[in-house]
Amino acid sequence: MATVVFCAANKMAQTTTRQCFITHFKRLASVRETHLPFSSTHSPSVTTLPATRWFSRATGVRLMSQGTAGRAAAGRTRRGALALSGAAAVTAAAAVAGFLANANHFQRAEMATRVSQAAEEREQEGDILERCRGFMSPPVTDIGVLQGRKDEMRTRMEMLIMETQAEFCRALQEADGGVFKVDRWERKEGGGGISCVMQDGKVFEKAGVNVSVVFGNLTEEAARQMRSRGKVLKGKDGKLPFCAMGVSSVIHPKNPHIPTVHFNYRYFEIEEEDGTKQWWFGGGTDLTPVYINKEDAYHFHKTLKEACDKHHSQYYPDFKKWCDRYFYIRHRGETRGIGGIFFDDLDSPSQEEAFNFVKSCARTVVPCYLPIVYKHLNDSFTDEEKDWQQVRRGRYVEFNLVYDRGVKFGLATPGSRIESILMSLPLTARWEYMHEPAKGTLEAEMLEVLRNPKEWV
Amino acid sequence: MATVVFCAANKMAQTTTRQCFITHFKRLASVRETHLPFSSTHSPSVTTLPATRWFSRATGVRLMSQGTAGRAAAGRTRRGALALSGAAAVTAAAAVAGFLANANHFQRAEMATRVSQAAEEREQEGDILERCRGFMSPPVTDIGVLQGRKDEMRTRMEMLIMETQAEFCRALQEADGGVFKVDRWERKEGGGGISCVMQDGKVFEKAGVNVSVVFGNLTEEAARQMRSRGKVLKGKDGKLPFCAMGVSSVIHPKNPHIPTVHFNYRYFEIEEEDGTKQWWFGGGTDLTPVYINKEDAYHFHKTLKEACDKHHSQYYPDFKKWCDRYFYIRHRGETRGIGGIFFDDLDSPSQEEAFNFVKSCARTVVPCYLPIVYKHLNDSFTDEEKDWQQVRRGRYVEFNLVYDRGVKFGLATPGSRIESILMSLPLTARWEYMHEPAKGTLEAEMLEVLRNPKEWV
Repeated sequence: MATVVFCAANKMAQTTTRQCFITHFKRLASVRETHLPFSSTHSPSVTTLPATRWFSRATGVRLMSQGTAGRAAAGRTRRGALALSGAAAVTAAAAVAGFLANANHFQRAEMATRVSQAAEEREQEGDILERCRGFMSPPVTDIGVLQGRKDEMRTRMEMLIMETQAEFCRALQEADGGVFKVDRWERKEGGGGISCVMQDGKVFEKAGVNVSVVFGNLTEEAARQMRSRGKVLKGKDGKLPFCAMGVSSVIHPKNPHIPTVHFNYRYFEIEEEDGTKQWWFGGGTDLTPVYINKEDAYHFHKTLKEACDKHHSQYYPDFKKWCDRYFYIRHRGETRGIGGIFFDDLDSPSQEEAFNFVKSCARTVVPCYLPIVYKHLNDSFTDEEKDWQQVRRGRYVEFNLVYDRGVKFGLATPGSRIESILMSLPLTARWEYMHEPAKGTLEAEMLEVLRNPKEWV
Repeated sequence: MATVVFCAANKMAQTTTRQCFITHFKRLASVRETHLPFSSTHSPSVTTLPATRWFSRATGVRLMSQGTAGRAAAGRTRRGALALSGAAAVTAAAAVAGFLANANHFQRAEMATRVSQAAEEREQEGDILERCRGFMSPPVTDIGVLQGRKDEMRTRMEMLIMETQAEFCRALQEADGGVFKVDRWERKEGGGGISCVMQDGKVFEKAGVNVSVVFGNLTEEAARQMRSRGKVLKGKDGKLPFCAMGVSSVIHPKNPHIPTVHFNYRYFEIEEEDGTKQWWFGGGTDLTPVYINKEDAYHFHKTLKEACDKHHSQYYPDFKKWCDRYFYIRHRGETRGIGGIFFDDLDSPSQEEAFNFVKSCARTVVPCYLPIVYKHLNDSFTDEEKDWQQVRRGRYVEFNLVYDRGVKFGLATPGSRIESILMSLPLTARWEYMHEPAKGTLEAEMLEVLRNPKEWV
């Protein structure tokens, strides 16, 4: 098994298993592309790999509807989708072309999910130190401390969020060719974080993946506000020792045909007066396209639904609705994007089962998003399409600054790291007075969906 | 008096008096420029005009420090400050050059203030219908109704805000060459407004000047929130008939050397259970430059101080401090700009005197701002300067969406006209992760002032 050998030789161990698949397939694709034309339906030369069955369904017809070929014929003035030049452009174009020829993106996603299940099983066995080697930075908590309380939930969750960050960052770096800037920061009151940001890359205008692990004492009022259903918690002398951690990310691509994605998975622990520990999980993943692409929407929601269905049949329908309700720009009467899942206060059926659900969600981020990125990597676009993206970016800013509970809580909390909170804002945005797309346009179609959220699966 | 004759022949009557001066001087300047070199110190040929004494102080040395000549030598790659071409460029450049040669901008402002005092005295005498002819649109309230209650404060204030809108819009149109889009809108619950927006002009990226006159019933809670000092008001069955009106404006120029300006002047009336009328005024004008220009800052604050000093020696110092406190981006630890004045709940010493103060402030908007616009109209700028402007625009958005009381109140109020509230947002903005200007740069100098507000006068 070539892929596994490749990964075993790689220092990143289990955390990069999925990533290795992507790298591997991209390299194969790249090599193939030097021999085969872009639109070839030639059967790939990787039939000896275990994942081969996902490769066999790709067709030339499908390529025409997905690749640049179909769009380029539209006759509008178009700019190049990527500002690549020379060798980089050739390599990237070849990789993408080969990638498209080799696999249905969503089949690849399915494959990645299967791979992650195996990794999941191995996770508990892995040595903390060994797992840390694949992270973007040493974890926030001292490795010795983590080793000492290996089985506690806060350790397991910190390892999960660090792994999620590393895995997602590496997948994005592969797609972009750029490198994340990694900032470690400390919080005076306790804890700290690791912010990874890639700005003005080839593919991504701004990509931020942030981990934070903070602890200290909360007032009863603050504790109430942290929990969306506002449960009353009793502290010792009004103070509640707490621990909060999470991974959150917003990715704003340059190409208006690649949607923005956001995800956030978090865990809270609060100790009450009598020593009881209250704990809960929260999180979600949601997509904000600039134009509706039904196939992308279906893939995204279906991948999330599958991750949810493994744990409870009600999770996807409930958390999909919650997502549409939460990411709602009230003053515009529109949702921010086409949703996904969102949940909070998850403290049942057991801590173990809730954690496994969150783990499934976190492991679904790459297969939810990366296939969509690769699919549109080389789409060309017009100035008008870029402008509409910028207008939608403006709405993204409106949601984040006016409604997002996390941002509001962060900005109002002394000692917060503002740059990590506001890294979710796009590099550029636009506000046009009285902007209203003409009837029948693709922009109007997008707005219609934002005004009336749809069921995609 | 040529100027007065010109204005009398103009349908806009008194409302455009100051504007006529600007037009007049620009025309003279433009004519002169065809005969004289740009840097000439030649004494102007307009000595027969009453305002001549303000012209005599201009010098060639001053020109070098203000005009493009000095900056162009800096050796950096620069783009053209204005996207003008052909005849338009020649005319505009000539007008500006002549303008610079003819007068110290701030002397012109002083002149404009004097002119407005005369206009002020005439105001009360003018016929409502006649005055309405100069407006951007018929007033919100029916002209017949205004004529029927000519002496009531709400009529006098509505006339003032309509005049302020017209005067400012025309001055901006003169500077830009573009035309405002005028939208009248109605509020289902009572009243309406007139929004004037000029977008993507030659000089202004986005210029919005909005009038609103709304009335209806407030809950006691809403009434309390409307007043910054939260006075308790007693309504009949909990309801309070109210009337609120104001003019507000935000101007975002394209050139990073022309600052953004904002002003807002408003009046409230609330009727209590026993029929007593509570009333108060609020408002302010503040400047948000991208780079510090001490001369501009001095001119802006001095013009405001003079308007304040005519009414109370404590107004300027108190309202300047209030402005710095109000336009504060707490999570950044910086003010939005270099301030100006801000006040609220003004209900003393008498309604007449408070109104006269607000009138002075409103009449000071053009002389505060337009000289600064003309001074920098042709400044060239680098890509780096444009980027810094865009980063500062991002902060402007942060303030407006996170802290501004008016915006928050508007977005949370059902039936608000969102486009009029959010027209204050710039056309374009930028968020760079961890943006921190290098020490000793002009950008760092700007930040230093925003972190430690200065006294300018």
